[in-house]
Amino acid sequence: MQVMSGKEVSKAVYEELHTRTEAFVQTHGYAPTLAVVLVGNDPASQSYVNSKKKACLSLGFGHQDYTLAQDSTQEELLSVVRRLNADSTVHGILVQLPLPSHMDSEAVIETIDQHKDVDGFHPMSVGKLLIGLPTFVSCTPLGVLTMLDHYKIETSGKHVVIVGRSNIVGKPLAALLMQKGRDATVTVCHSRTADLASLTMTADILISAIGKPLFIQPSMVKEGAVVIDVGINRIEDPAAKRGYRLVGDVDYDTVSSHCSFITPVPGGVGVMTIAMLMKNTLQAASLLAAKDTK
Amino acid sequence: MQVMSGKEVSKAVYEELHTRTEAFVQTHGYAPTLAVVLVGNDPASQSYVNSKKKACLSLGFGHQDYTLAQDSTQEELLSVVRRLNADSTVHGILVQLPLPSHMDSEAVIETIDQHKDVDGFHPMSVGKLLIGLPTFVSCTPLGVLTMLDHYKIETSGKHVVIVGRSNIVGKPLAALLMQKGRDATVTVCHSRTADLASLTMTADILISAIGKPLFIQPSMVKEGAVVIDVGINRIEDPAAKRGYRLVGDVDYDTVSSHCSFITPVPGGVGVMTIAMLMKNTLQAASLLAAKDTK
Repeated sequence: MQVMSGKEVSKAVYEELHTRTEAFVQTHGYAPTLAVVLVGNDPASQSYVNSKKKACLSLGFGHQDYTLAQDSTQEELLSVVRRLNADSTVHGILVQLPLPSHMDSEAVIETIDQHKDVDGFHPMSVGKLLIGLPTFVSCTPLGVLTMLDHYKIETSGKHVVIVGRSNIVGKPLAALLMQKGRDATVTVCHSRTADLASLTMTADILISAIGKPLFIQPSMVKEGAVVIDVGINRIEDPAAKRGYRLVGDVDYDTVSSHCSFITPVPGGVGVMTIAMLMKNTLQAASLLAAKDTK
Repeated sequence: MQVMSGKEVSKAVYEELHTRTEAFVQTHGYAPTLAVVLVGNDPASQSYVNSKKKACLSLGFGHQDYTLAQDSTQEELLSVVRRLNADSTVHGILVQLPLPSHMDSEAVIETIDQHKDVDGFHPMSVGKLLIGLPTFVSCTPLGVLTMLDHYKIETSGKHVVIVGRSNIVGKPLAALLMQKGRDATVTVCHSRTADLASLTMTADILISAIGKPLFIQPSMVKEGAVVIDVGINRIEDPAAKRGYRLVGDVDYDTVSSHCSFITPVPGGVGVMTIAMLMKNTLQAASLLAAKDTK
């Protein structure tokens, strides 16, 4: 059994991004720039926004932060997004989700210029993904593919079973893996699936993104399968400093002994997300630069 | 075993559309109008375009035909599409595919106003479909869902195996059936799938859209399964008037005896397609009218 280390893979990604960013700056005379928009002061969201800022700084990317008050109007947020769309020095725009409940997230996402949609949540990006056209791929699914590639895990003809059908993980992953070139046979399971274990047992590659701690047990995993754990769940742990610890969807201790590859939590897929956001931002900057010189 | 008749279901759809169209005309003082753009003179495409025209006439829809020469430029086609986008008397725009090879189909489809995309091929429509937002659903997948609904076939918790991953059938059907509300467990198989029969054998609902005559044999179908045959294939038949006859992907004669429901070819899903196009056109007209009165 081999552990698929998010730390190791993201380190390799950052090294490549460093080189490509230097070349980009040399060629164009400016750095790829990400604008992050946060509404309100939710501590978890603030912490995510800070991590993104740090990643930008570490790569020499430009970075812009916009924080709107919790009680801002939808129109105020949209006008910030429109301003960033029009700003040619901004290449990637990310509106931190979730938004306050009085806002219409879909309308906000659809307002982002699709050429700056580095989160890959715009319906144009999602549609192109399913059709099989080049586009921005949302960060967690892109992180999963990058880990599979890093460990040279073949997907062609393999049965990939995805547990969870969210818009940010399960559905885009299914869309990606069934495309020509990836060529996986893809099954998407979810809370309504009858006899889940008999399906997961047939998986050559099992991907769980359901958000239930220790949900995937050894009896649900085929001997020698590849197990990708996208879940990040807090469980109470009085022995831990903060009173909780992070676990995945997979019961790692019992499952790991009979699979061929497995991602740990923490230190697995979660580590990849921001690296992929940086990759998308560099890509956005490169595509926008190519468009300008046309 | 019950035969799912496309004729019966489309008749019911047309009856409903007749009533809704009359109400629409009464309310708005004009009819839903479809514009069909054909490039070149391929006989099959001409025949499809004619069928669409007939359907429009039968429902009292407005209808516009645009035929461009085979050697038209991409820009000529785009300017027709842009003119139709801007024409408020046109509610649905359909560019007949395939286009000549010197044209970029994706660019043409993306130029169609998404509010008039009655074919459901625009990436915005496809993206919204996968995300689970209301949108135009392409006609063949919508026809399949309509047939399932007509025969009260439950999809929740059922294992739907789709054979074929095309952009017009397999992928959008998978996206639709995995959504909340439909709640199917969905597997997408294709030419690269290993051990296809063992997967199709687990299907409660088996949908074939692979375009191979008589591909689905009884040994691939679970006793009591629902079998939906989207394939329409020509096979030589010296006894037939035209020298060929139409068969599906499913070996109907041998498979039908051990499934619970089955669609015939011809007379099955194929019959539904144009009815669904009319439904989308009425929907486009209704949504555009609602937008105008806002």
